[in-house]
Amino acid sequence: MSHAPSEFLDRRHQTIRRALRERELDALVVTSLPNVLYLTNFSGSAAIVVLTADRLFFVTDFRYTTAIADMRGAPHECPELELIVVDGSYDVTLANLLKTLPSARVGFEAADLSVSRYNYLRGALSAAANAPELIVTEGLVQRARAVKDAYELGLFAEAARRLSGVARQIVSLVRRGRSEREIALDIDWQIRHAGFERAAFDTIVASGPNAALPHARPSERTLIEGDLVVLDFGGVYDSYCVDLTRTVSVGPASGQARRVHEAVRCAHDRAVAAVGPGQSRFVIDDAARRTLGEAGMADAFGHGTGHGLGIEVHEDPRISKRRGQTDTDDAVTAGMVFTIEPGAYFPGWGGVRIEDDVVVTETGVRLLTDVPTELLEI
Amino acid sequence: MSHAPSEFLDRRHQTIRRALRERELDALVVTSLPNVLYLTNFSGSAAIVVLTADRLFFVTDFRYTTAIADMRGAPHECPELELIVVDGSYDVTLANLLKTLPSARVGFEAADLSVSRYNYLRGALSAAANAPELIVTEGLVQRARAVKDAYELGLFAEAARRLSGVARQIVSLVRRGRSEREIALDIDWQIRHAGFERAAFDTIVASGPNAALPHARPSERTLIEGDLVVLDFGGVYDSYCVDLTRTVSVGPASGQARRVHEAVRCAHDRAVAAVGPGQSRFVIDDAARRTLGEAGMADAFGHGTGHGLGIEVHEDPRISKRRGQTDTDDAVTAGMVFTIEPGAYFPGWGGVRIEDDVVVTETGVRLLTDVPTELLEI
Repeated sequence: MSHAPSEFLDRRHQTIRRALRERELDALVVTSLPNVLYLTNFSGSAAIVVLTADRLFFVTDFRYTTAIADMRGAPHECPELELIVVDGSYDVTLANLLKTLPSARVGFEAADLSVSRYNYLRGALSAAANAPELIVTEGLVQRARAVKDAYELGLFAEAARRLSGVARQIVSLVRRGRSEREIALDIDWQIRHAGFERAAFDTIVASGPNAALPHARPSERTLIEGDLVVLDFGGVYDSYCVDLTRTVSVGPASGQARRVHEAVRCAHDRAVAAVGPGQSRFVIDDAARRTLGEAGMADAFGHGTGHGLGIEVHEDPRISKRRGQTDTDDAVTAGMVFTIEPGAYFPGWGGVRIEDDVVVTETGVRLLTDVPTELLEI
Repeated sequence: MSHAPSEFLDRRHQTIRRALRERELDALVVTSLPNVLYLTNFSGSAAIVVLTADRLFFVTDFRYTTAIADMRGAPHECPELELIVVDGSYDVTLANLLKTLPSARVGFEAADLSVSRYNYLRGALSAAANAPELIVTEGLVQRARAVKDAYELGLFAEAARRLSGVARQIVSLVRRGRSEREIALDIDWQIRHAGFERAAFDTIVASGPNAALPHARPSERTLIEGDLVVLDFGGVYDSYCVDLTRTVSVGPASGQARRVHEAVRCAHDRAVAAVGPGQSRFVIDDAARRTLGEAGMADAFGHGTGHGLGIEVHEDPRISKRRGQTDTDDAVTAGMVFTIEPGAYFPGWGGVRIEDDVVVTETGVRLLTDVPTELLEI
């Protein structure tokens, strides 16, 4: 269970209901589990929410009925929740529920419903009298999730403080002769002991030439003098993800290593400085990309500058290059939380990435993570 | 990367190609990542495979091109792999690829393609000359995956041996005064140090009344004399999942605790004994269910008796009660690997679960995990 107070859940419901009215939808079937959690505090592995103008149906199976009962009367209880226990299968139960509702236009999350389930649902409903029409929706709850409320911002501050504490331990873990895998294990241990539920993703410890792969997996390679080591790790705190990367040098760094690190650090700082309410996400990305370009490293930065953080470790907004005409230039707004993580990667040589988490404020930007970005020589 | 030797991958491709011919399909678009891993050894977070009668296209993005290049010439190289690097987006790249193929009937994985992606693909292809027809397939690769090959069975033997070693450490971790959370952390540590990539799922340590929830999360509750403690944990070893549960008593067990544990243990043993090639999965489930029923605990066993193990921690076959007319009674066959995990849960009091992993052999069944099932009093 997540612990957003009931009044915050209620406000989230009202936000989604406004979006439903705008689209002339009578109901929304929420099948994305992160969206279910956002609307109800439920963090189990299976549930469906059906939200109408004045009701909230919560479909789950017997495994979770005790957890739902325990939430009753708690400060984080989901308001208005009407529990429906799965009988047969989720899809059968959902179809039966939709048949009983007076909803004519029912939205569903097209990115989070498979063709199999959609075909079943359509077939089951078509047999019903007054069968509702199923309407595609895209990112309706995700758009609400992108702007964090006060409860979420409080969580982020605490989670980032704890993750920064883990980052400050790095200096004691990285040393020549240790393997990437050993260090990753120790980082995961620190993450759990810092009070996180779990690591937010598989911790990356990429040394020497391995650091050229942005998504390397920790190997048995042992660190040697002169290695650059990319350490990228995150934690889940009361269901919310934070994410941080530092790159350190084993022993004194070479001139080339210093130049690359300094260029990435400069790209990081300029991208952070570019953040503010109303700013284009493409412009933020460009601040990092242009800086690396000016250092002659344009081709070495193949990924986006950042991604939103929340219940998922990658969510909106995407701080990236415009990829095509359909890629809409949504400006970032106050309350959005995302990473800034430029990098430069050179196959055969290695790489550097520096990542922090930021929140857009009413007037600009605030760093959530708080660890020095200077190149550490360990 | 997973490490199945190339000749095993080749055999897997031939199995799928036979299935395509039976369905008169010219190609299959594989969007399920576990299926992609099964066919190519690729364990990254994004890729699509298009398998035709004589070619294998592998669509991924720049993050993984180095990993694919590193596989070339290795003993676990994916045969025939033609790399296509994503340009724009996965869906645009996939549509462009399908337009160039002479395939008229293209199967897709309906359970692993969202309505959004399907709608895009259909729209993009409809504009093409000789647009291929998109045909729903269900569980085509999953059915092949359910029967493990010799490489996979070797992995399971090793993974289960290592997980059994972790289980034997439990006695040193469980003691009064420790919290569920502390014990779960220690188990996760042991899992990683036993050589697993990661835990296969969130480790369960459920004590006293918490043990009544089959999917409890470790809490701050500290163990007290007389608690039953359900410990359920698993590991991922070279991409394959194993899973084990034992229930122990803190100090001497009560008469009721002994009776419940003995009934569950008997249900476990009878279900294992019922396993053999050609046996109905419903009959295996019933062996456990009937045993608990005879002990007067029919209502206390709300979940299925077991689930298949493999690249996913829950896959086919499902060892469960028949849920409806459409629930087909596939017999289990030699090479299938699954859990046997009956349990009995009493709200307010607690619960017991005992879980092992088994493989169906040509003549019967073999236990993969190997730890005593007697009630431990610690």
